[in-house]
Amino acid sequence: MITDIVILAAGQGTRMRSSLPKVLHTIAGQPMVEHVIRQAQAISDSRIHLVTGHGSDQVRDALADYDINYIMQTEQLGTGHAVAQALPALTEGSRVLILYGDVPLTPADVMQSMLNNVTENSMSLLTVELENPHGYGRIVRTAGAITAIVEHKDASESQRSIREINTGIMAVSQSHLARWLPELSCDNAQGEYYLTDIIAMAAKEKVAVVGSQPEFEQQVQGVNNRLQQAELERWYQLQQALVLMESGVSLADPARIDVRGTLTAGQDCFIDINTLFEGQVVLGNGVIVGANCVLKNCTVEEGTVIEPNSMIDQSKVAENCRIGPFARLRPQTELAAGAKIGNFVETKKSQIGAGAKVNHLTYIGDAEIGERANIGAGTITCNYDGVNKFKTKVGADAFIGSNSALVAPVSIGEKAVIGAGSTITKDVSDYALSVARGRQISKDNWKK
Amino acid sequence: MITDIVILAAGQGTRMRSSLPKVLHTIAGQPMVEHVIRQAQAISDSRIHLVTGHGSDQVRDALADYDINYIMQTEQLGTGHAVAQALPALTEGSRVLILYGDVPLTPADVMQSMLNNVTENSMSLLTVELENPHGYGRIVRTAGAITAIVEHKDASESQRSIREINTGIMAVSQSHLARWLPELSCDNAQGEYYLTDIIAMAAKEKVAVVGSQPEFEQQVQGVNNRLQQAELERWYQLQQALVLMESGVSLADPARIDVRGTLTAGQDCFIDINTLFEGQVVLGNGVIVGANCVLKNCTVEEGTVIEPNSMIDQSKVAENCRIGPFARLRPQTELAAGAKIGNFVETKKSQIGAGAKVNHLTYIGDAEIGERANIGAGTITCNYDGVNKFKTKVGADAFIGSNSALVAPVSIGEKAVIGAGSTITKDVSDYALSVARGRQISKDNWKK
Amino acid sequence: MITDIVILAAGQGTRMRSSLPKVLHTIAGQPMVEHVIRQAQAISDSRIHLVTGHGSDQVRDALADYDINYIMQTEQLGTGHAVAQALPALTEGSRVLILYGDVPLTPADVMQSMLNNVTENSMSLLTVELENPHGYGRIVRTAGAITAIVEHKDASESQRSIREINTGIMAVSQSHLARWLPELSCDNAQGEYYLTDIIAMAAKEKVAVVGSQPEFEQQVQGVNNRLQQAELERWYQLQQALVLMESGVSLADPARIDVRGTLTAGQDCFIDINTLFEGQVVLGNGVIVGANCVLKNCTVEEGTVIEPNSMIDQSKVAENCRIGPFARLRPQTELAAGAKIGNFVETKKSQIGAGAKVNHLTYIGDAEIGERANIGAGTITCNYDGVNKFKTKVGADAFIGSNSALVAPVSIGEKAVIGAGSTITKDVSDYALSVARGRQISKDNWKK
Repeated sequence: MITDIVILAAGQGTRMRSSLPKVLHTIAGQPMVEHVIRQAQAISDSRIHLVTGHGSDQVRDALADYDINYIMQTEQLGTGHAVAQALPALTEGSRVLILYGDVPLTPADVMQSMLNNVTENSMSLLTVELENPHGYGRIVRTAGAITAIVEHKDASESQRSIREINTGIMAVSQSHLARWLPELSCDNAQGEYYLTDIIAMAAKEKVAVVGSQPEFEQQVQGVNNRLQQAELERWYQLQQALVLMESGVSLADPARIDVRGTLTAGQDCFIDINTLFEGQVVLGNGVIVGANCVLKNCTVEEGTVIEPNSMIDQSKVAENCRIGPFARLRPQTELAAGAKIGNFVETKKSQIGAGAKVNHLTYIGDAEIGERANIGAGTITCNYDGVNKFKTKVGADAFIGSNSALVAPVSIGEKAVIGAGSTITKDVSDYALSVARGRQISKDNWKK
Repeated sequence: MITDIVILAAGQGTRMRSSLPKVLHTIAGQPMVEHVIRQAQAISDSRIHLVTGHGSDQVRDALADYDINYIMQTEQLGTGHAVAQALPALTEGSRVLILYGDVPLTPADVMQSMLNNVTENSMSLLTVELENPHGYGRIVRTAGAITAIVEHKDASESQRSIREINTGIMAVSQSHLARWLPELSCDNAQGEYYLTDIIAMAAKEKVAVVGSQPEFEQQVQGVNNRLQQAELERWYQLQQALVLMESGVSLADPARIDVRGTLTAGQDCFIDINTLFEGQVVLGNGVIVGANCVLKNCTVEEGTVIEPNSMIDQSKVAENCRIGPFARLRPQTELAAGAKIGNFVETKKSQIGAGAKVNHLTYIGDAEIGERANIGAGTITCNYDGVNKFKTKVGADAFIGSNSALVAPVSIGEKAVIGAGSTITKDVSDYALSVARGRQISKDNWKK
Repeated sequence: MITDIVILAAGQGTRMRSSLPKVLHTIAGQPMVEHVIRQAQAISDSRIHLVTGHGSDQVRDALADYDINYIMQTEQLGTGHAVAQALPALTEGSRVLILYGDVPLTPADVMQSMLNNVTENSMSLLTVELENPHGYGRIVRTAGAITAIVEHKDASESQRSIREINTGIMAVSQSHLARWLPELSCDNAQGEYYLTDIIAMAAKEKVAVVGSQPEFEQQVQGVNNRLQQAELERWYQLQQALVLMESGVSLADPARIDVRGTLTAGQDCFIDINTLFEGQVVLGNGVIVGANCVLKNCTVEEGTVIEPNSMIDQSKVAENCRIGPFARLRPQTELAAGAKIGNFVETKKSQIGAGAKVNHLTYIGDAEIGERANIGAGTITCNYDGVNKFKTKVGADAFIGSNSALVAPVSIGEKAVIGAGSTITKDVSDYALSVARGRQISKDNWKK
């Protein structure tokens, strides 16, 4: 059966105090609405409808990669009104799941189990028990069955003691929705059409309202301000830390790792305090990530040690390398096995051969460094003439003396030696020694 | 009416285990007593009296910028004795507010509301309800009115169940104080004069003791050891984080931002984990501050991105700049719009023109860099000859080849080009090319 | 009397999902079993027996420095079986203390007090009250005396409400153990020999079972997975933070300091957020350690300031030095009083004289820098020719111009001056000026 998934994402989010539409605010670096979409995509035979309003263009731009049917809600007249805008786009006879772009962490399995309860005689409502339900619509049950939702302000004292509340997330057949939505009234204090009023209609028509609950209340938590955003962020990060630990990763402090994307780690990795992972990061077995490292879209193979305060972006690091501290691997850096990148070294768009060493205060850009080559401290590849970028090649076992400048395009042969302090502008043959520096002149008693 | 504010700051603070007087220990980088003074300054028509004792000279030196009447308490004979030392300095007929230099976070509005209750028939006492009141003086109320303070050791079992305790902060008319203080007795186990004994005198004379409460118990928390200092520090930092979030700033982790001074941020700033702000920092809209950054006394305008592990001190950064990672802007650095400071770059007392790039491993000191100039990797401005500092000027659109040394005083013209590896000691004209490096000499088969 | 200490360390720790035997997983950088051994060593006249099984060789290798009697348990048939393997190695008439290699934080004083209760008529059992005792063996007491341990699954409802549980840590005379262990049965669901069954034997023989309790439940917490490891790590780190604060150190955030080894700090040190200490670190009075610093096996004397993002390893820093930010002192660096190491500077196996300055972007390796010498920005000591390392000496008050390369072996005299951009290959006399750079050649109108 077809599932139509309607995600409400039209709100402005005034309390975020932002020029960004609320649903584009992020959890773990990803817009909240994108979290919702990604989980919704796991529902088979489904079609996603996004009801947008405030900042509609921004939302569409941010989600350009997704297959979404956009529905414009030009006026914000309540959740019932929002879903009603989607009604014409829904498939006749489908099941409809209603989600919220600012409730980012509802998992697909909760969605699926709700959909499983949708028939012509039943619908699904996601509820949650809160320690402090103040302000929320309470779930009224009669003999166990959900019979009504009573808003906080309308609740009697005994109803206010109910801790089960309405999350607003529901699943219902399209046929019911098509009949009920037009009957919603805006005859209330806010003058809005409330989606939750269909629960009373269901009860009236003897359509069973099946309640289901998430494992964690954070999975139905909405974000209305930056504090709620931060709280959900920390909870989400902690869940990821727990998953990593279960899979065999040691974390120095589960409260001080941030994963904004996907971190896949082999067995016996150790991830130290205050680390940050972005995009897709894959670590092999036994990789050590030191304190304060930032890793983004990179692969690091077995046994490599990344010392503290290092940053890696869009790079591939082979096994048993040693990186940092204070190293920065920029995009398209590739380290072969056992390579060493030391402190205050920047690499970019370069291949560093197996066992090669770039230990200190060096810039390697647009270069191929051969196996076992030794790049002295303070070496600079001069890859840019102000207009174009050029390549530097250093052969296997070459030795580049410290404080040298290699002016690209230039090629240094295998086992070649460059004298310290040289500015190399011409190619150097295999086995050759090349020096390019001024003669030393001294004047005695200069300071006496 | 005149308000005399008496701040007790004579204690040694043995449990701090410090050579510093207790009140000079800091919260958010500022001595505790300075927090008290700054809030007290908000009271109009007020005069601040500081009762000092231990480390009196250190305290005075630390507070040299404030207008304070210092009163020396040579012996520490209790709070009543301390206030009595101030008595001769108080204005006849004034209201007197008594504060403590080691209770740093009482806000001015609490002080003001206490003072509003001071008349000839009433005084004010700040109390607080504690979860665990063990050890504190309990507030005894009769028909709601405060009638006594009973010290913990003297309290009956039912009195010990009272959770409202005395903070010691009070406001009272000078005339009452002048009459009551001389009547205090030191006939107790400690042999000290207790200020709190005036509450009993007030009750006896039918002077109403009006209790008021702070919003948070931390606002009346005293600091007696480093743990209490740390706990108050963390609470204070969290309050600042909450204020930032309310104003429209996203924090990656509200528990991992430290503000030691004032951070003013525009809308939609994102402040990443483990950041540290000192002094006066102003961020424009949409500024991103990366992980582990330290910003001190600086202004960063709209749209600028500061990548992780960067430090900025006493600098001005215009809009849409890009800084870091691993950049360090030292005092008197000014970046014009769109300038870029990259990794392992240090700047000091320099102006960097709009769109100029200083991308890697460079020291720019005492320099003016023109618009769109490109400073190659490893460039060093040699601004110091061991005695004096000299200036370097680089014209607009100039291109400084990598690993160059610019020996100041020196001027590089507009659109001039410096060859890589050059040590430039003489001025270079606009549009000129200048190279200063040794000739490359190679010896073949050196290593064969 | 002799004490035999039997530490059970044969388990695989499947839930750690690791190739490392469980007891080698670390708390504060030290294998868990090593924590146990170190505390056990404090018991006088004691001998340590380690029962190993899974990863026995790895365990022995890791503990090679300790005087331990290893006992191999080839099959894992329960705790009773494990102790039984040790039985032949125990001293006749000794007291026996039974510990667990995966219960790392039991302190020596708890062990000692347990041993004090071991006689021919009494044995010792360590118990603890848990908020949630679910799953643990409950301590059944009759008239206050421990009479049985009931496993959770066998417990009656009223027994399940008992919150005092068995830790498994016990002390008992060798003679009792020798008689009881052979009587253990494996006639249970797991088919294992349970050490705890001897409690029932003791009760039967009227040997009193004296219960004692640790101060904190974490002191008897076992580690079965990475989450428990992380939780114990954080608790341990917090305890160390509390000890530091009590001793007169200010911590910016007690939850953000990690000590993996021993940190000894003088009075009035300030340790900022997110700092990491490894091995033996000693700080003098008033030392300031900035945010994100990593200090390892080093001594830092009074008044030295370490700015943020600095790393020090196996180095000695004298008083009133200034280090960082972004400085890295590698092994065998020694700074004399008042020396200054600035940003993006790496030092290694070098002595830096009193008041000397190495302020920016420099590598100092295998060097002696004289007092008050000034090493310009971008200076590199070229200490390595690809085969050997050579020494660089810089005399007192020498001035090394920026971007210089000092090609070792080389010696720069006192008060000598090196021109900026020089590559120095020959010694320079005292008071001499030496320059080694190319001549500057300019071509006008190059870019017009």
